[in-house]
Amino acid sequence: MSDRYRYVLDEKKLPTAWYNVAADLPEPLPPYLGPDGEPVRPEQLAAIFPPALLEQEMSQDRFIDIPGPVIDLLRTYRPSALTRARLFEKALGLPDNIRIYYKYEGGNASGSHKANSAIPQAYYNKLAGIRKLTTETGAGQWGTALAMAGAQVGLEVDVYMVRVSFDQKPYRRILMETFGASVHASPSTRTQAGRSFLSASPETPGSLAMAISEAVEVALQDPGTNYALGSVLNHVCLHQTIIGQEAIGQMELAEDEPDVVIGCFGGGSNFAGLAFPYYHRRLQGLSKARLLAVEPLACPSLTCGEYRHDLGDASGMTPLLPMYTLGHDFVPAGIHAGGLRYHGGSPLVSALVKAGQVEAVAVPQSECFSSAVLFARAEALLPAPESSHAIAAAVREARAAAEAGQARTILFNLSGNGYLDLAAYDSWNQGRIRDYDYAARKVVEAPAGN
Amino acid sequence: MSDRYRYVLDEKKLPTAWYNVAADLPEPLPPYLGPDGEPVRPEQLAAIFPPALLEQEMSQDRFIDIPGPVIDLLRTYRPSALTRARLFEKALGLPDNIRIYYKYEGGNASGSHKANSAIPQAYYNKLAGIRKLTTETGAGQWGTALAMAGAQVGLEVDVYMVRVSFDQKPYRRILMETFGASVHASPSTRTQAGRSFLSASPETPGSLAMAISEAVEVALQDPGTNYALGSVLNHVCLHQTIIGQEAIGQMELAEDEPDVVIGCFGGGSNFAGLAFPYYHRRLQGLSKARLLAVEPLACPSLTCGEYRHDLGDASGMTPLLPMYTLGHDFVPAGIHAGGLRYHGGSPLVSALVKAGQVEAVAVPQSECFSSAVLFARAEALLPAPESSHAIAAAVREARAAAEAGQARTILFNLSGNGYLDLAAYDSWNQGRIRDYDYAARKVVEAPAGN
Repeated sequence: MSDRYRYVLDEKKLPTAWYNVAADLPEPLPPYLGPDGEPVRPEQLAAIFPPALLEQEMSQDRFIDIPGPVIDLLRTYRPSALTRARLFEKALGLPDNIRIYYKYEGGNASGSHKANSAIPQAYYNKLAGIRKLTTETGAGQWGTALAMAGAQVGLEVDVYMVRVSFDQKPYRRILMETFGASVHASPSTRTQAGRSFLSASPETPGSLAMAISEAVEVALQDPGTNYALGSVLNHVCLHQTIIGQEAIGQMELAEDEPDVVIGCFGGGSNFAGLAFPYYHRRLQGLSKARLLAVEPLACPSLTCGEYRHDLGDASGMTPLLPMYTLGHDFVPAGIHAGGLRYHGGSPLVSALVKAGQVEAVAVPQSECFSSAVLFARAEALLPAPESSHAIAAAVREARAAAEAGQARTILFNLSGNGYLDLAAYDSWNQGRIRDYDYAARKVVEAPAGN
Repeated sequence: MSDRYRYVLDEKKLPTAWYNVAADLPEPLPPYLGPDGEPVRPEQLAAIFPPALLEQEMSQDRFIDIPGPVIDLLRTYRPSALTRARLFEKALGLPDNIRIYYKYEGGNASGSHKANSAIPQAYYNKLAGIRKLTTETGAGQWGTALAMAGAQVGLEVDVYMVRVSFDQKPYRRILMETFGASVHASPSTRTQAGRSFLSASPETPGSLAMAISEAVEVALQDPGTNYALGSVLNHVCLHQTIIGQEAIGQMELAEDEPDVVIGCFGGGSNFAGLAFPYYHRRLQGLSKARLLAVEPLACPSLTCGEYRHDLGDASGMTPLLPMYTLGHDFVPAGIHAGGLRYHGGSPLVSALVKAGQVEAVAVPQSECFSSAVLFARAEALLPAPESSHAIAAAVREARAAAEAGQARTILFNLSGNGYLDLAAYDSWNQGRIRDYDYAARKVVEAPAGN
């Protein structure tokens, strides 16, 4: 067992291909369906996505080479660190046969794993002669990542930001503008969709669904403009698999092997990024790791949703995707402070949950903040509220092993940092965080001591 | 010449001793003086500092061992990355014989190099049986670092934060509170000094000098409470020398050697951290690097100040330090947005400037923000406004070399990130940044194109 704290991979060990789990699913993924109920053909999506990304979306190839110019941009911040959380283990009072490791994806300018897909998406669009990308953003992680990648490859970026976030999170907007992006509060008067939303409800706080409508409308109207999505789709999960591939190499340096691999789950891309390469490793007979997706109790698509075809957005501008879903008209309870608010989730992750290859658990946000603050004070690293779900599950795994007197090696994805989410921590510090249990459809008080 | 982007040192290469430049000064440092004009004796400062730090403050030993428990905390985020700014070089259109490297100190939870001294200061105080530390903070980098270190070693931390920053920078306050610190807007009603300031001027925005008075008063009154300072003093500069020691090892990995080593200059600790080990390397005959301290045109203590004994604070609670100073009653012009607002600077750095061993230059803040945004868009890393002074100087060095047709290897310290300073970037994005020339005592318009 290595006695180190951080496991640092050499730049030359940056993966040169993405791992495509679609090649290894127990059953083929059901097709995406159009409004007519017929399978969607790639060319139907060509108005908003470049050829390379559509090809990746449908590909059955197990490995897909990462283009050299993409690697050159990824290596500005990769390989990312993998750390044994020795001080957190100590704070939890764990014995030495229960070990916690985390892969940290918040060290780049965008502050989260989202950069891993923003960079290739910007690259392939630039290659296809596209001049401008449109996208939506809620809390702002994805919009920031795309703004950053756009600045690097030389693409204009227009971000439609949910109005309530635009008003409440000025730092996110400023960061995107500093990277050169244009940021519009959505709904805006710039699009037909936006004007129509505003006409129906002039005081609307906006929603991700409305912002998607605006961004897609702009992309559809201009051949030089495409649209980019930050999670859910296959090609986005594909781009994130560098996380797990690096982690496998780093756990080898640690002379350790995880018994459980954990990621928080919203659209699914950060979970997929860490877990899919371990799924592959299991198929190779090199790992027996359980793969655990962690979602908010207030938005539990995997644990309470139905597996079926459903719209990817709320207004019918996307195909129907085969996934676990709470229904495309689902809106999380207002008291839910963290991210991970999507009604469905990645078709690839959903298929693996359905096949019993991936486990899922839902945790209340008080437990997440409590775990995150304990982690922050021990490890000196402030997690994004999203990532705190993975920490809470890691703590549960550690405590369960301790109670059972078992050894356990736990690896989780710390998908982003929380420096632009400090308002949520303030709510926690002030005792204003409460939990919502979607399954019971009611607010539940946080347990004392949390 | 190596073709890599980042140069990553193994954890085992973390320095095990700090380098004390006091052992190698051309002339011994003049003593600190008390209010009576007599040299201050260590025991006079023992009411607010622990023995180990006082010993370091006065030590003439060239190397001072870093205690094992301090190394264990430092290795949660060290060694820090050293990066060749290949994308920034490209954005500047530099030929391959002009190379820019930067050491990045913003990757830890405190967001800056300040953690490097907060950790040993917290450790030595804990060791001395101290229960609580008080300190002041302006923009918040130092208060955050001490809050973080206090959480790690188990010390209470009370931060007196300049009221205008407390009101305008809630994220900084929340971050300190999340680490468990108590944060008080200064002047407060908690101290005699604070009540007296408030009585004289109920609407005062506060100042660093007032906050120091409050923090020191609390430390003087309680034997279990000490005071901690984040820059200027010898022991703080000492703790930062791990930066330069690591950089020397990383530049060897890069198979390159800097011609000029650059750091921004406020109190002096981040500059000292990178530059002092290169000063030592010069004495060993292994380097010919010029050492360049960069200060704001609005607060140019090294380039416009007088070398003499002056108070470290504004109210006479500290000894008189031998340093370049603009006078202890100096207050920077209100339009100066960045940090680096201290009236004087490190006695050690001042002595080396006076001896001609260190160069100094003052730059306008428009040039700093312009360079920082160019850097952010190319390298995908948002610099702290303080650190942008080093970037501006690096750009000047690169352009001067290009114009002269010379080769030049430039190394600068990117001392912190700017994620909690986005309001200043917003001012820049909105065209609201103006320059103040202290030497001419007037506001100057930013040059067009900046």
